[in-house]
Amino acid sequence: MKRKSLRQSICPVTRSLDQIGDWWSLLIIRTALVGGRRFSDFRLNLGISPNMLSARLKMLIHDGIMELVPSTDGGPHPEYLLTEKGRALRPVIVELAQWGQRFLFEPDEACTSLVDAYHGAQRERMRGSQ
Amino acid sequence: MKRKSLRQSICPVTRSLDQIGDWWSLLIIRTALVGGRRFSDFRLNLGISPNMLSARLKMLIHDGIMELVPSTDGGPHPEYLLTEKGRALRPVIVELAQWGQRFLFEPDEACTSLVDAYHGAQRERMRGSQ
Repeated sequence: MKRKSLRQSICPVTRSLDQIGDWWSLLIIRTALVGGRRFSDFRLNLGISPNMLSARLKMLIHDGIMELVPSTDGGPHPEYLLTEKGRALRPVIVELAQWGQRFLFEPDEACTSLVDAYHGAQRERMRGSQ
Repeated sequence: MKRKSLRQSICPVTRSLDQIGDWWSLLIIRTALVGGRRFSDFRLNLGISPNMLSARLKMLIHDGIMELVPSTDGGPHPEYLLTEKGRALRPVIVELAQWGQRFLFEPDEACTSLVDAYHGAQRERMRGSQ
């Protein structure tokens, strides 16, 4: 009942949170925005259990935020790509990152940027984790 | 354990979601950004149970996102105000609203703006719900 009333709210913030207001979903979208494409990219990057990841990816595909496509390099592993609707969440993620960086880190504390995260995902893939 | 590892993540998005990645918290912050100040503003605006609301407000105060101050009009009801850290979440809320408006509403569907929400909260307070 609560979920239904959120989905039908006339407030766009409420309706957005109904669809992506679960931090696993937002972290999957973040990982996709910085280059994650394969199931293993998300699993390694997030340390999420395969069952949980699989359920969230299904939900994101169902909601039109991601889509499953054949491997872009001809390999056997399908890839999860953000749709236009998913890519449009970049500003939300960027604002969350900036807020976190400003208020949740000590001035001298190590902090990844979205670009670091991309390179991390690339390195993980190149280490051969499919 | 999972909560701890999120809080200590070197990714600022992850750390932010650990602190505000619960849609009740973000909806409370949204309501505060548009003028909600009293316990009853939040309760009416969100349709949240008093116990749940009380717990979330305590958490937001603990995290330095809101603070409890005496009534600004000399009345008996203390008020919940956003701190600088809390007000700095406005861009996150605005981006969520814009995304929701673009992708989760039909073109001709009624949709509140943050300004509408402010006026709604004002009207609710003026109706005398303390």
